[in-house]
Amino acid sequence: MTYCLAACVDAGLVFVSDSRTNAGIDRLGVHSKMHAFTDTEGRFFTLLSAGNLATTQAVVAELRRDVREGARTSLATVGRLRDAADYVGSLNRKIVEKYGNDDSEEGFNPSADFIFGGQIGDNPHALFHVYAQGNYISPTALVPFLQLGEQKYGRPILDRIIQMRSSLATVALCGLVSMDSTMRSNASVGPPIEVMIYRASSSAPPVHIVYAEDHPYLRTIRESWAVNLRRAFDDLPPLSLPEGDVRLVEK
Amino acid sequence: MTYCLAACVDAGLVFVSDSRTNAGIDRLGVHSKMHAFTDTEGRFFTLLSAGNLATTQAVVAELRRDVREGARTSLATVGRLRDAADYVGSLNRKIVEKYGNDDSEEGFNPSADFIFGGQIGDNPHALFHVYAQGNYISPTALVPFLQLGEQKYGRPILDRIIQMRSSLATVALCGLVSMDSTMRSNASVGPPIEVMIYRASSSAPPVHIVYAEDHPYLRTIRESWAVNLRRAFDDLPPLSLPEGDVRLVEK
Repeated sequence: MTYCLAACVDAGLVFVSDSRTNAGIDRLGVHSKMHAFTDTEGRFFTLLSAGNLATTQAVVAELRRDVREGARTSLATVGRLRDAADYVGSLNRKIVEKYGNDDSEEGFNPSADFIFGGQIGDNPHALFHVYAQGNYISPTALVPFLQLGEQKYGRPILDRIIQMRSSLATVALCGLVSMDSTMRSNASVGPPIEVMIYRASSSAPPVHIVYAEDHPYLRTIRESWAVNLRRAFDDLPPLSLPEGDVRLVEK
Repeated sequence: MTYCLAACVDAGLVFVSDSRTNAGIDRLGVHSKMHAFTDTEGRFFTLLSAGNLATTQAVVAELRRDVREGARTSLATVGRLRDAADYVGSLNRKIVEKYGNDDSEEGFNPSADFIFGGQIGDNPHALFHVYAQGNYISPTALVPFLQLGEQKYGRPILDRIIQMRSSLATVALCGLVSMDSTMRSNASVGPPIEVMIYRASSSAPPVHIVYAEDHPYLRTIRESWAVNLRRAFDDLPPLSLPEGDVRLVEK
């Protein structure tokens, strides 16, 4: 399984991903699910991947090859970010169709989906969830983030913290907390954890951090969050049991 | 969908359930999923249900009828809680088999599963997850709780708080917080919220509380938790961006 998330807020884009892959519980692997494309002038793109690893690697390889070989449509040529998302979706669909024929072994599933975001020149930065079918959605200002994979464990904290006006550091920290909660409750999500922070319309290069499991900051977050969450719980008004309020009626 | 949870700790048993049922997104209903059986001398049982509503109602009706009609096997006669769980499982299986034949309309699923717990006389109190197949598992001392339905959103707080030595009030409060987080992130889980607190080997009657959506304590919990969680997050050590640590290497 996988857990990836990304947010598109006023200040820019933040991407967070785990690195655990598995084909059966006894075939765990470590593969980066974060793919940055920065070799195109004035353009920034990042792709997060979930699903079939062969499909995601093939999509990433084609994206890179199309730029390198000067293809007519590539991340170096698309005019708008929606066009880029559409192009990613069509590559994805092409590869899924190539391998997912009717003779497929039962249980074989070549499908993959992606979070894809970036900025082209002075156009607004944007973010899309690109589905296996090739179509895509963008998040809204009310819920300005997207998730892939094991998304439920870490969802409540995102719902409470991430807003359009949140700082990039806040969004990234919230993503790490969400990731930590998910890893704690689900063994199929695991380190290293990658974070990409892109400040919109800025000349500063994007920041890419790879946190190994025992990275001091990741450990600090984990320990502080455990303590703070415990205190948040202990500070709740205690449950007062209603005196003699026993309503064991047959329903 | 449904979200129910129950814990079996040293002090006793706690059950928490939502009340939203749905057969399609436009057919929402409100049905209690908590069924207490207290009309048997020296015995206490509570059943939480998830899945097909007709099946769960049939199981509950048969359980009550068997007691009322003095059946040879009933909640009034079983000697051990495992036997009671087995009996619940066999009723469940019987009903699922009755309605789930091969001619079933596509998409029709009569299956249901249950959390079932209680205490018989001086025997230890216990808790089981009873599956549609009729078999069952009990929780462990390391993770002394069970969940049904939409369990992922509210899982992390249970993992952090509930332990064997937790007080019943702490467990019930944690269950309410877990329920609140789930309702916030998932529209298929909804009020009223029911809580049952059973102190093991006690002559005091169990406490059953039904919280409507606007119940003052539920609102207090919701608001306090939002504030406390925000503070827990704000008190984390801020993300420090490594100076010039830009590692955008092609992978």
